[in-house]
Amino acid sequence: MIIRPRPTGWQLLYILRGSIVPAIAPKVLAIGVLAVAVAAFERYWHPFGRDGVTVVPFTLLGLVLSIFLSFRNSACHDRWWEGRKLWGQLLIEARSVARAAAALLPGEPALRTRASHLLIAFAHALAARLRAADQAAAAAPWLADDQRAVLQRRNIPDAVLAQLAGELAVPLHAGRLDPYLYGQFEARLQAMSSVQAGCERIAGTPLPFAYTLLLHRCAWLFCVLLPFGLAGALGWATPLVSMLLAYAFFGLDQLGEELEEPFGLEPNDLPLDAMVRTIEIDVLDALGRRPLPEPLQPQGHVLR
Amino acid sequence: MIIRPRPTGWQLLYILRGSIVPAIAPKVLAIGVLAVAVAAFERYWHPFGRDGVTVVPFTLLGLVLSIFLSFRNSACHDRWWEGRKLWGQLLIEARSVARAAAALLPGEPALRTRASHLLIAFAHALAARLRAADQAAAAAPWLADDQRAVLQRRNIPDAVLAQLAGELAVPLHAGRLDPYLYGQFEARLQAMSSVQAGCERIAGTPLPFAYTLLLHRCAWLFCVLLPFGLAGALGWATPLVSMLLAYAFFGLDQLGEELEEPFGLEPNDLPLDAMVRTIEIDVLDALGRRPLPEPLQPQGHVLR
Amino acid sequence: MIIRPRPTGWQLLYILRGSIVPAIAPKVLAIGVLAVAVAAFERYWHPFGRDGVTVVPFTLLGLVLSIFLSFRNSACHDRWWEGRKLWGQLLIEARSVARAAAALLPGEPALRTRASHLLIAFAHALAARLRAADQAAAAAPWLADDQRAVLQRRNIPDAVLAQLAGELAVPLHAGRLDPYLYGQFEARLQAMSSVQAGCERIAGTPLPFAYTLLLHRCAWLFCVLLPFGLAGALGWATPLVSMLLAYAFFGLDQLGEELEEPFGLEPNDLPLDAMVRTIEIDVLDALGRRPLPEPLQPQGHVLR
Amino acid sequence: MIIRPRPTGWQLLYILRGSIVPAIAPKVLAIGVLAVAVAAFERYWHPFGRDGVTVVPFTLLGLVLSIFLSFRNSACHDRWWEGRKLWGQLLIEARSVARAAAALLPGEPALRTRASHLLIAFAHALAARLRAADQAAAAAPWLADDQRAVLQRRNIPDAVLAQLAGELAVPLHAGRLDPYLYGQFEARLQAMSSVQAGCERIAGTPLPFAYTLLLHRCAWLFCVLLPFGLAGALGWATPLVSMLLAYAFFGLDQLGEELEEPFGLEPNDLPLDAMVRTIEIDVLDALGRRPLPEPLQPQGHVLR
Amino acid sequence: MIIRPRPTGWQLLYILRGSIVPAIAPKVLAIGVLAVAVAAFERYWHPFGRDGVTVVPFTLLGLVLSIFLSFRNSACHDRWWEGRKLWGQLLIEARSVARAAAALLPGEPALRTRASHLLIAFAHALAARLRAADQAAAAAPWLADDQRAVLQRRNIPDAVLAQLAGELAVPLHAGRLDPYLYGQFEARLQAMSSVQAGCERIAGTPLPFAYTLLLHRCAWLFCVLLPFGLAGALGWATPLVSMLLAYAFFGLDQLGEELEEPFGLEPNDLPLDAMVRTIEIDVLDALGRRPLPEPLQPQGHVLR
Repeated sequence: MIIRPRPTGWQLLYILRGSIVPAIAPKVLAIGVLAVAVAAFERYWHPFGRDGVTVVPFTLLGLVLSIFLSFRNSACHDRWWEGRKLWGQLLIEARSVARAAAALLPGEPALRTRASHLLIAFAHALAARLRAADQAAAAAPWLADDQRAVLQRRNIPDAVLAQLAGELAVPLHAGRLDPYLYGQFEARLQAMSSVQAGCERIAGTPLPFAYTLLLHRCAWLFCVLLPFGLAGALGWATPLVSMLLAYAFFGLDQLGEELEEPFGLEPNDLPLDAMVRTIEIDVLDALGRRPLPEPLQPQGHVLR
Repeated sequence: MIIRPRPTGWQLLYILRGSIVPAIAPKVLAIGVLAVAVAAFERYWHPFGRDGVTVVPFTLLGLVLSIFLSFRNSACHDRWWEGRKLWGQLLIEARSVARAAAALLPGEPALRTRASHLLIAFAHALAARLRAADQAAAAAPWLADDQRAVLQRRNIPDAVLAQLAGELAVPLHAGRLDPYLYGQFEARLQAMSSVQAGCERIAGTPLPFAYTLLLHRCAWLFCVLLPFGLAGALGWATPLVSMLLAYAFFGLDQLGEELEEPFGLEPNDLPLDAMVRTIEIDVLDALGRRPLPEPLQPQGHVLR
Repeated sequence: MIIRPRPTGWQLLYILRGSIVPAIAPKVLAIGVLAVAVAAFERYWHPFGRDGVTVVPFTLLGLVLSIFLSFRNSACHDRWWEGRKLWGQLLIEARSVARAAAALLPGEPALRTRASHLLIAFAHALAARLRAADQAAAAAPWLADDQRAVLQRRNIPDAVLAQLAGELAVPLHAGRLDPYLYGQFEARLQAMSSVQAGCERIAGTPLPFAYTLLLHRCAWLFCVLLPFGLAGALGWATPLVSMLLAYAFFGLDQLGEELEEPFGLEPNDLPLDAMVRTIEIDVLDALGRRPLPEPLQPQGHVLR
Repeated sequence: MIIRPRPTGWQLLYILRGSIVPAIAPKVLAIGVLAVAVAAFERYWHPFGRDGVTVVPFTLLGLVLSIFLSFRNSACHDRWWEGRKLWGQLLIEARSVARAAAALLPGEPALRTRASHLLIAFAHALAARLRAADQAAAAAPWLADDQRAVLQRRNIPDAVLAQLAGELAVPLHAGRLDPYLYGQFEARLQAMSSVQAGCERIAGTPLPFAYTLLLHRCAWLFCVLLPFGLAGALGWATPLVSMLLAYAFFGLDQLGEELEEPFGLEPNDLPLDAMVRTIEIDVLDALGRRPLPEPLQPQGHVLR
Repeated sequence: MIIRPRPTGWQLLYILRGSIVPAIAPKVLAIGVLAVAVAAFERYWHPFGRDGVTVVPFTLLGLVLSIFLSFRNSACHDRWWEGRKLWGQLLIEARSVARAAAALLPGEPALRTRASHLLIAFAHALAARLRAADQAAAAAPWLADDQRAVLQRRNIPDAVLAQLAGELAVPLHAGRLDPYLYGQFEARLQAMSSVQAGCERIAGTPLPFAYTLLLHRCAWLFCVLLPFGLAGALGWATPLVSMLLAYAFFGLDQLGEELEEPFGLEPNDLPLDAMVRTIEIDVLDALGRRPLPEPLQPQGHVLR
């Protein structure tokens, strides 16, 4: 179980780490500079009048934009959370295979060890695949010499599962494992295959690109036009309110962007390395290994 | 795993490929021309007054419209994402059948090859069926001569599954496959049948047509009336704001339309051909075939 | 697979078939007449002033109404889509039973035919039950003479399933079917029973009636009061804007009403007859029957 | 299947039964009286001005409130609908156990009758438990004399399931029932246990209480302050608009409250008694009993 | 089943227990003090004008904020409700294992007792793990002397499941339990493992931290700026309306915070101790133990 330490109370108002402020500060400042210029122009030439009617269309525009940004954020958050659930599922399956191997194959400790290492190899290979790293290098340390053929396959996590299925089929064909109980192992491998395909779906199919384009452009146009709409009514308060709205809109746009691809390395992405380590610890713990590796610790509030 | 390259940063502001701008530009320009006319009329005859009260009803109308457009977009996005999940499920099932055939039928390489080819034939036939193309032509290259009877059936993907079930039943009836383990194969075929019926549901049952009509008409009426409401308050800025709102509303309407039918050939539809190819690669990789076909590459940011 | 032809482009702006315009036109016209009267009254007696402040409370009321109409529409759409999913599930189960019977009972063609006909009888009886038609009459043509006892049961679809379970249990008790494989058939029957209960739930439990009442009444009150709020600001444009808003609100109210009961015979309801026919075709196709019945065709964009 | 008769057309505008009007009328009238007082005060002392600016903050407040009321209503509706689904699931399981018992235990009519009566006892006991009535009294009429020990258990529905499992295990241990087929019965009991725990979860864990408090209080404060905000702009129309908004807000608050606890006896709660009767009819029908009990009929549009 | 007593009627307007008022009162009062100062400043220097145009941008800002607060609250409520569902699932599994052990292992009362105690130990250890308490101390009272090796494992709930699997495998290997029926027990353990991993996911992966930061900051900025926007229009009513809005926004922010971590000890968190006690009662009741422990009672409307 990974619990990330979180700042609380007043810290929430100024902390920068884990925040998206650094990513969007340039854009927000640009809007602020523009708003100062517009307010100054308004102050000395009064082109807009002070009756505030120009604000109303911006209310409409801003609400349309926030309804759709909210839809996109919700969809991106669902992707992120589904990614997390899939890795939680992988943890369940790894623990279950380890538990069932101990209960059902008490007389075959070597097979049990090999199966446990293949579980760990699968997790490493999948994490590498999702981050476009070297799958073979990630899986190799956990493979025995006679298992290295799997490194030749293009889809290494799938090859690891096939290897595991083949090794568990040996006691089945030898009559030392009941077909039904073998089927239980197969169901676990099937579930691990589902985790892999689910993660690939999230990593390989972003939200339709036109959404991102449409919302990104509308957010920019809105924030650039906003000071012109506000200056008549708010005068020198225009930059403050414009920047606050730009902070909210650009922030939510940026956050949606980060969550859309939850397997990356940005601060709000999923800590794949730490989750692989958790699987490693639980599987080795079930084998009775000591000492166990330590859980990964966050670096500056961020866990990779 | 299919990862589409995506433009980033400033590119997001001007890129046209993958965007819906080409599809809606004529409508947005038409609204712009209308808005210029209305603003000119207002400028020289002042029929609306400058007090901006006419804007308020449009705020109400625009918000009602965006709440319901958001509902429809959310439903259409769900259809698109469910379509993607179904094809991900097909990938899981194909990999699992291939893996289980290797582990459970080690002595029957011919059956394993035939089964793998039938899996690929199913994927091709289903993609063709969903795009109203020739199912028989899509499946034929992967069928052996004694399997060509399936091409006479009206529902070819279903016939392919029946053929696969029949071939796997041979070792069952001969006592070389345990009934429970046969049942595991049957469960995979059942899941593939679910994928087919789920895709047919999405392709054959669009959102109730009255929604599309109602929202399409309200969007048009709103955008046509909008310049009249804005001209009094915004003067020459009317065309700019009208076009921005028309861009948002027509864009979201168009995007909903594209996602509603996710198996088509529009830029934001699902890349069925590339997903079929992925299944082909993974199944042939599991058989140990070399060289493997290459994954399909996007053409101009768009993958079919 | 049922693909309904749909009008496109400019047709979307004037077509009436499949639209809800005929159903709500009287109400919208009534609001229009009222608005003309209110606008005339305002024009000659000016009771409301031209400052537009009376519009603002209507904005609030209209938004509250549209947020809750959106909630109800979303719930009704979910019911409709769940109904469609349940019938898709029935198609999956019918195809799977037909496929499994062919693979597992190759030596019993008579049983296979009887089982297939019972599947079709189930679909007919369920559709009749959901539309409050004569279940016995719908199922009878597909029953053999020695199966007609099921017509005496009160719940005919359930009786058909029990008959099917009984017939499949004969080879089980005779030792010609493995218990596990019999269990696979039973799982399909269980799923068909779930489809039945799910459809009954949707047909028998509408949305809490107080929602319908509350929203229907608020929509009426809102539309009746609206012209009074708009007349001061909009003058002679009042009827146009009032009717547009009435069109949106009454239209969404009416559409929610139609989707709430998806098994009826209104234009936007589910085409049960066509779906029963699809099941018939696929099951008979799997038996190798020729000629097959034709899919039902829509009559004026509407499929029953 | 339970179909409740519903009023239609003009009836929808005046009917009181099934509506929440009686429950909220006092509150709405209180707001109306307050609004008359405020409007009169405004009419003779003009403390607020007629420029309507005081309305705008109420727009903001009202929208915030309706967004959150909508969230709560959606959550409460989900609870109600989940409760209905759970009872639908119970119906599926009862029908399936009855069907499977007929097919799999053809030589044991006494066991089949006892099992069917236990199914009915479970439904009665669960309904009583959810309504805090006497579980033992509800289950007792369906228990044979040698089964009355279950009435000593604290959790009677669970004890009924254990009794049923024990009785079905007799043919298993005697070798008259295949272990796999016994497992199918066990899976049905497991599903009935899930129904019980799901219903207990809904009945025992309301929405976090602070939501109810916060929304209830904000609704009251809003409705009490509203006339002060409207009086300047609307004059004597203030009571009408205030009462309309109070009707909407108090109505939705009240409706959420009723749906939050779907197993109660209020008009919009689930008709547990009628659903238990449906289970009774279907199980006895499957046993071939005649005459069958009649379905419960609604009393004044309300079914308990 | 745990039913918490709830205050009703007028009590809802003043009760503090179970409310979030104590937690947010300081912030709301601070906004009130600020608003009084701003209103006084406005009253004597009139810097803002009385035309109310400054309110409109706050409407926009407030709505954006409430749309996103609503999204976050919905996500946090889903986490809380999923946590509750997981514990409901644990109750189902515990009851099912107890029931199946009684039916399937009638000749092994000692094993049945040991298994039941391990179920209880699992619930205690999981609750302790989620609240970062001592897992070993929580599980120890329910372990026999020869089971204490599980206390050496790092992941104690998982070790308890492995122990249970091992003990149930003894009759399997001895031929006293059919492999399929053993598999049914294993499926229950698998489900308990899913409950554990699901709870760990919720406890270990909060909502992306940037959401909390962004919304918390926007809520503060909004509430601090609000009095400046309202003072021109509302005068001395500014503090009242500002505090009402601050109450709503800070309240929802705080409530989201509490529900985000549903396994804590705050008033709106899940009553883990009471749920563990329920499992204890039901499992011991199934063993026939008397007297049973009493359900935990809420202390001042709050159940831990």
